Amino acid sequence: MELLPRQQVAFQRLLDTIRRGYERFGFVPVETPVFETVDTLLTKSGGETEKQVYFVQSTGALQQGNKPDIALRFDLTVPLARYVAEHERDLAFPFRRYQIQRVYRGERAQRGRFREFYQCDIDVIGKDSLSAHYDAEIPAVIYHVFSELDFGGFTINVNNRKVLLGLLDGLGVDDAEKRVLVLREIDKLDKIGRDKVRDSLTGLGMAADAAEKILSLIDAKGTNEETLAALGALGIENETFRQGVAELTTVIQGLKALQVPDGVVRINLAIARGLDYYTGTVYETFLNDHPGIGSVCSGGRYDNLASHYTKSKLPGVGISIGATRLFYQLMEAGIIKDGGATAQVLVTQMDPALSADYYGLATALRAAGINTEIQLDGGKLAKQMKYADKAGIPLVVLMGSDEKARGTATLKHLVKGEQVEVPLADLAAKAKELLGA
Amino acid sequence: MELLPRQQVAFQRLLDTIRRGYERFGFVPVETPVFETVDTLLTKSGGETEKQVYFVQSTGALQQGNKPDIALRFDLTVPLARYVAEHERDLAFPFRRYQIQRVYRGERAQRGRFREFYQCDIDVIGKDSLSAHYDAEIPAVIYHVFSELDFGGFTINVNNRKVLLGLLDGLGVDDAEKRVLVLREIDKLDKIGRDKVRDSLTGLGMAADAAEKILSLIDAKGTNEETLAALGALGIENETFRQGVAELTTVIQGLKALQVPDGVVRINLAIARGLDYYTGTVYETFLNDHPGIGSVCSGGRYDNLASHYTKSKLPGVGISIGATRLFYQLMEAGIIKDGGATAQVLVTQMDPALSADYYGLATALRAAGINTEIQLDGGKLAKQMKYADKAGIPLVVLMGSDEKARGTATLKHLVKGEQVEVPLADLAAKAKELLGA
Repeated sequence: MELLPRQQVAFQRLLDTIRRGYERFGFVPVETPVFETVDTLLTKSGGETEKQVYFVQSTGALQQGNKPDIALRFDLTVPLARYVAEHERDLAFPFRRYQIQRVYRGERAQRGRFREFYQCDIDVIGKDSLSAHYDAEIPAVIYHVFSELDFGGFTINVNNRKVLLGLLDGLGVDDAEKRVLVLREIDKLDKIGRDKVRDSLTGLGMAADAAEKILSLIDAKGTNEETLAALGALGIENETFRQGVAELTTVIQGLKALQVPDGVVRINLAIARGLDYYTGTVYETFLNDHPGIGSVCSGGRYDNLASHYTKSKLPGVGISIGATRLFYQLMEAGIIKDGGATAQVLVTQMDPALSADYYGLATALRAAGINTEIQLDGGKLAKQMKYADKAGIPLVVLMGSDEKARGTATLKHLVKGEQVEVPLADLAAKAKELLGA
Repeated sequence: MELLPRQQVAFQRLLDTIRRGYERFGFVPVETPVFETVDTLLTKSGGETEKQVYFVQSTGALQQGNKPDIALRFDLTVPLARYVAEHERDLAFPFRRYQIQRVYRGERAQRGRFREFYQCDIDVIGKDSLSAHYDAEIPAVIYHVFSELDFGGFTINVNNRKVLLGLLDGLGVDDAEKRVLVLREIDKLDKIGRDKVRDSLTGLGMAADAAEKILSLIDAKGTNEETLAALGALGIENETFRQGVAELTTVIQGLKALQVPDGVVRINLAIARGLDYYTGTVYETFLNDHPGIGSVCSGGRYDNLASHYTKSKLPGVGISIGATRLFYQLMEAGIIKDGGATAQVLVTQMDPALSADYYGLATALRAAGINTEIQLDGGKLAKQMKYADKAGIPLVVLMGSDEKARGTATLKHLVKGEQVEVPLADLAAKAKELLGA
């Protein structure tokens, strides 16, 4: 994805809003190099990821026919694990980091899929332990960020894999591998519907009444409190199940204390997240008016971030926003419009003899904190106005020799159509007023 | 270079300041993909650059033994040329873009040299022509940005290659190749001194009196006005020379109108810049107290940006700040200190029974625009305070059951040592006051 400047301004605004939201909750920035060693990158991944890696070789290495030993990161989680393991002694735990960088996947380029795209991640990493209260904070961050982004209503789906795993265990599905297969089918409930999932479950050897019981539970559309009550009423003594329900209760109560409105967060027992990486709470976020986009912010809790790189136990919880895809989809849907220029004011050159005055005006406006541009080539005024319009600069300053004699200049707002002559001493203040800043 | 979070905060502040400065002058953002095709990247470069390129191959391409057809950008100029040529019809000219991205060079990693580093570039690209007034604006941007960065005094050296080339032509050195060799020697004047440069020039076949004449002129330490007057007084009729002096005069006069203080910009006729790429004005910027760092911001005017990619004539002028190297050097020199945390306030948990109250306080502080963190694990208060200290969070909120009963909380500033109990309604305002915001 390569953007034109006015689109880039809008994209930059998206990234800035996400970053500001993450910082509002005290997350600290980390950037890692785009390269990781092949050893680091390919420890945990299976064949699927390996197929998508971009290998890197300098000219010299290529000529010598060496095998590449570095590659581009394909997510921000592997670099985070390596980073935390490497700098463990220098970090304050719980370590709350955000990372907004591009990642690279060697996929065939197709509409809406990118080989290079931004991920905006937050994670909280504990040392040895991390309480479930952190699982409650994450949706509060999502709520804050997506409220600021202002893309309309959204719903944060929350679940806990322990609830489902414990439930299956309680229903007699006690084989770990089979449970994973069952979870994968359950995850499809919102997409393919109850009947098809029931068939898949019985196909996997589950008793029809057990399948029906679990689907009734998952498919119920109650409030979060009703869902928690229904889970409690099942009377299942399974320890994993009990833990999962307790964690889910902590999350829902925490979100109330953090004043996230009812209705924004919804327990959805069907959300299992494909990745076996997650061990407890999981999140998926949907835009209410654009369900087709899929989850715009997902993540969850994991038991141990960096077992490949350190002996320390580092449990964590985090989420990721795929900003490039989100931006692209919302631009296509007309939700995100082009941004304006970065310049708020264009000082025009009506009279070449006054150019030193124009330079002075621009300097004064900049000193007042207003982003200001001069068309230094001068030329016909109509051409300068056309430039302001094409570039998206809302306000222009006009000063001819008459105005100069009166010690004034004229401000013209190209969108509002307003025009006003003001004393030079008031120029910056009036410009700010017209800009609505 | 991989930074710890508190260093990353400081680095982020550096990039933000540069970006804000660029936007203050109305430059618009562009980001290009990290990959360019090998064809695009290696058109203009000679052997030196080619040795430093990182080639990229996906797993599939590597297995098939294909030659790599994409590589990582090694600067931001080649991507800019490709970008402008590709999007020419959609851009408003003069096109003023800034680009703050990482570039990659396959150099051997060594102290202060990085294989991956940030460049922060601005360029103004004209269509067919671009007046020398733009050459005057560029040092005004440098002045603004480095004033905001606040690294102490700095000097922007300005020269114009036409002055030197015309001068040499006037002195009888009319062979183009030889003039380039002479310029390269002159460029060393500040480093190796006048005697050695004179020897080199006569070694290149220049007459001793001509060499002496040019060195006297270049070595004179007058004001900019005196230098311009001295150039005018030479009475050289060469057209290139005359143009160069006129452009240099435009730059110096423009900077006066833009209110850049005398003394910050200095005409330095010795600055020739190694790159033959530049055709007129050239810039180099030095920190007065750290000359050893070398130029921290360089650039110049070029006749045609994108001759390899389009038939349009696109003259431009621009500069680049190598932010990674600058940051590293100033951190080593102790000029840049670690940044603080992103969180300004830590809400502590004195009493686990009040956790819902603490969540509420944090939410209120965040709503007031204060970056706020809660240590959700709770635990001993001393441990929470120690965390605030290690993480660099300046202000903590304390509330026990007594304070809760009184409807108050205590704010404690860990650096200033100040402590004050305030009604909850005033908490955010008082916190802002203590933070000096």
